[in-house]
Amino acid sequence: MKIEQDIALARRLADAAGDAIRPHFRTGLTGDRKSDASPVTVADRAAEEAMRRILKAEVPRDTVIGEEFGTETGSSNRTWVLDPIDGTVSFIGGRPIFGTLIALLVDGWPVLGVIDQPILGERWIGASGHPTTFNGTAVRTRPCRELADAMMATTGPQYFDDHQGDHFMTLAAKTDHKRMMFGGDCYNYGLLASGHIDLICEAGLKLHDWAALVPIVEGAGGTMCDWNGEPLNIDSGGEVLAIGDPARLEDVIEAMACQHHD
Amino acid sequence: MKIEQDIALARRLADAAGDAIRPHFRTGLTGDRKSDASPVTVADRAAEEAMRRILKAEVPRDTVIGEEFGTETGSSNRTWVLDPIDGTVSFIGGRPIFGTLIALLVDGWPVLGVIDQPILGERWIGASGHPTTFNGTAVRTRPCRELADAMMATTGPQYFDDHQGDHFMTLAAKTDHKRMMFGGDCYNYGLLASGHIDLICEAGLKLHDWAALVPIVEGAGGTMCDWNGEPLNIDSGGEVLAIGDPARLEDVIEAMACQHHD
Repeated sequence: MKIEQDIALARRLADAAGDAIRPHFRTGLTGDRKSDASPVTVADRAAEEAMRRILKAEVPRDTVIGEEFGTETGSSNRTWVLDPIDGTVSFIGGRPIFGTLIALLVDGWPVLGVIDQPILGERWIGASGHPTTFNGTAVRTRPCRELADAMMATTGPQYFDDHQGDHFMTLAAKTDHKRMMFGGDCYNYGLLASGHIDLICEAGLKLHDWAALVPIVEGAGGTMCDWNGEPLNIDSGGEVLAIGDPARLEDVIEAMACQHHD
Repeated sequence: MKIEQDIALARRLADAAGDAIRPHFRTGLTGDRKSDASPVTVADRAAEEAMRRILKAEVPRDTVIGEEFGTETGSSNRTWVLDPIDGTVSFIGGRPIFGTLIALLVDGWPVLGVIDQPILGERWIGASGHPTTFNGTAVRTRPCRELADAMMATTGPQYFDDHQGDHFMTLAAKTDHKRMMFGGDCYNYGLLASGHIDLICEAGLKLHDWAALVPIVEGAGGTMCDWNGEPLNIDSGGEVLAIGDPARLEDVIEAMACQHHD
């Protein structure tokens, strides 16, 4: 199947997820607790079910991995990875900066990613061999001459353990920390792809949290890797960096390594 | 002057600020550094100037205090307090959850407040003797039966000193910390007024950061106070609580005081 057909399919998945999510926004949902005590709502479940129905009908041989309903193993070398609402806390809290994440992996490698914000009607799409787009217009990350000029974002300090927090703080102190931005989940990666922020450092991300972000960030000229600078893969431990200007990769890894080598 | 006239004036101020801000959103502004190294942009300055022009023409006897251009002392007992962009970091980063804050103080007490989000067209208005409105519709805070159920928000850990951070963490541990939400600035207070979150705990707020929020939160049924439970006033030290359900006030103060009395 051509990537263009997959992009069209991913758009339909995002449309269906948005249709399932919008009626629930700011309606007083507070969420049930999952086994790890993180919240999940009827909107998360409805959006994932809507996407799974389409995939089952259109690409029944592909594997599907979703945050809420687990893995349904197919027979092709293709895997769809779904996070119906990345930023469920933002969604519950009424902030329109959560997102639906859709990734297509071929032989385990993400070749297509979508971040969709269904309340604002904002959509980033990244695909191998295509420039990343925001609502249909190509976007680029911005240059960052010095790490000290970098505007960094992360969703929240509670996602770091103590050791990771030390590394994060070491890196943060070398960036423009007066412009540090907390909160945001996947939306930050879209903003990085569009050239509004320079750096994201997070921990505890699962495959469904990061797979869609790789084609978006890289198709906009940025780079994603783990905290050692290695490419992300299915076995990555959840420590993720997104860097808008790849020229700063070495500075970032060096800044983080000050702690690693203590 | 009747409060209705002041509300109408405040709406015109918010309109003018929004007109000044919108053309600059996501245009690559990164901001100059103020004396405290926090960022400010041409949009902050243009929005405050636009509001000051209207106040000078319409209520020349009122005092005006603005974040960017300081105090212009008038001869009445009325003071307008302006923060053209609360959440400049969010603005620079391309997140549409910053806000223009407008407060009217009479004899030093906030009787009118506006939070305006000019990109999304979202506006909360609170005024003495009026129910708080969101885009014209009355809103209410929600009940919160137990502190352990409370969804808490704060803009970022970097705004606490070490001592304040300890108090914050003590409180956070007693809330539903898996639903803790970071980032958001004034927008969080609007979400609290609309019943989407329960509790906000912040430090380092100045008069222009909190004055507009008091009529909005209290007109929706919530309460605002300092970390000791005392009403906020011009001499408050910047430690601010917003509590959606006033029945939880005592629990919150007690939770914070565990550290105060160490």
